[in-house]
Amino acid sequence: MAFWKSLLKDIDFYLVTDSGLSRKGTLSDVKCAVAAGCKIVQYREKDKTTKEMIEEAILIRKICGENAIFLVNDRIDVALAAGADGVHIGQDDMPIDSARRILGENKIIGLTVHDTDEAIEAERKGADYVGFSPVFDTTTKKDAGMGVGPERIQAVRKTINIPIVAIGGINKDNCISVIEKGVDSLVAISAIVCSDDVRRETEYFIETIRKTKQKYIQQS
Amino acid sequence: MAFWKSLLKDIDFYLVTDSGLSRKGTLSDVKCAVAAGCKIVQYREKDKTTKEMIEEAILIRKICGENAIFLVNDRIDVALAAGADGVHIGQDDMPIDSARRILGENKIIGLTVHDTDEAIEAERKGADYVGFSPVFDTTTKKDAGMGVGPERIQAVRKTINIPIVAIGGINKDNCISVIEKGVDSLVAISAIVCSDDVRRETEYFIETIRKTKQKYIQQS
Ligand code: NI
Repeated sequence: MAFWKSLLKDIDFYLVTDSGLSRKGTLSDVKCAVAAGCKIVQYREKDKTTKEMIEEAILIRKICGENAIFLVNDRIDVALAAGADGVHIGQDDMPIDSARRILGENKIIGLTVHDTDEAIEAERKGADYVGFSPVFDTTTKKDAGMGVGPERIQAVRKTINIPIVAIGGINKDNCISVIEKGVDSLVAISAIVCSDDVRRETEYFIETIRKTKQKYIQQS
Repeated sequence: MAFWKSLLKDIDFYLVTDSGLSRKGTLSDVKCAVAAGCKIVQYREKDKTTKEMIEEAILIRKICGENAIFLVNDRIDVALAAGADGVHIGQDDMPIDSARRILGENKIIGLTVHDTDEAIEAERKGADYVGFSPVFDTTTKKDAGMGVGPERIQAVRKTINIPIVAIGGINKDNCISVIEKGVDSLVAISAIVCSDDVRRETEYFIETIRKTKQKYIQQS
């Protein structure tokens, strides 16, 4: 197994960048989150030119170094140009078969899924992890739809073996209810990038996720 | 030399798609232009999802078949997924060094240049052709800037050996003045995609370009 793929089993808090919502800018957010111990970063950018995205992705690649997995959302061209560890693709992006053919076996491919069927299909097609979305209603991603609630996570957990990252409307108040359902990692965009202290908030999530996972493992 | 690259020396009229301006749709435009004898097609799309672009690019790949070179504007990911023959990149897109590394030697890379210096640099960095832009003022591409006039083409022609494609504000009235300056090919977006009969208009441009080139060769 490639080095970066082996790190996937250790992820807890998952950073997704959002230049539209960010208070201090994407590069600052990545620096603070990685300094706080975040081990996976996804660069999601829709409104910049390809050149600008590649320039920014190269900087994020450097910040992540060997401490955090670095993925690019949707844009496999940007991921290849910046030497990212892989991509995260949604249902409106490149089909996973094509992505795997272009990226090869050693790169990480994460896939957004909305239900158990899509999760099974994602694992069968060779996804390295799934992003289960949206857990709660969210205003961050316009086309995300209605939240399905944390209960559905348990069903997905029972059907696949690859890591599950929960996304959509997750914040400090509801994050424990999500981790208790058996996810490996979670995303909380607004709670992080809209914060005045990204490092502190990231540390809070990492600590909360670890503690809750331990409790979950002891009980089960 | 790869098969597709050898075809670059034979191009005359160069189709660039524009789904915003097109009267009958991009796929219809490509079909009509290729049927008229157009030997190079560039798929330029900014407002669709990656998935939609790949689906459309795969259909264009089929229409072009072995009759026309098929390039994708900017999006190297879409080009790779659709099996295009190469890409056309502008100054806001991926740097040519990265594009060449990702695509390899056998794919075509065309680069937009605005002056002699950029043209020399493009040839030095391994571009297979340059798009010289904008020749005339244009409203098709918002950020294209003021037209430099066809006179500048002669200077570029003297400095590089790779094919030159003229772009920007070219129509039936001014196209001869452009070909006379020594370009290999030209783009006339509005004159084609806003037309009721794309095939007829493409045939007109191809015939005009060929006749003018012959006259130019005889005189020089
Ligand atoms: Ni330009």
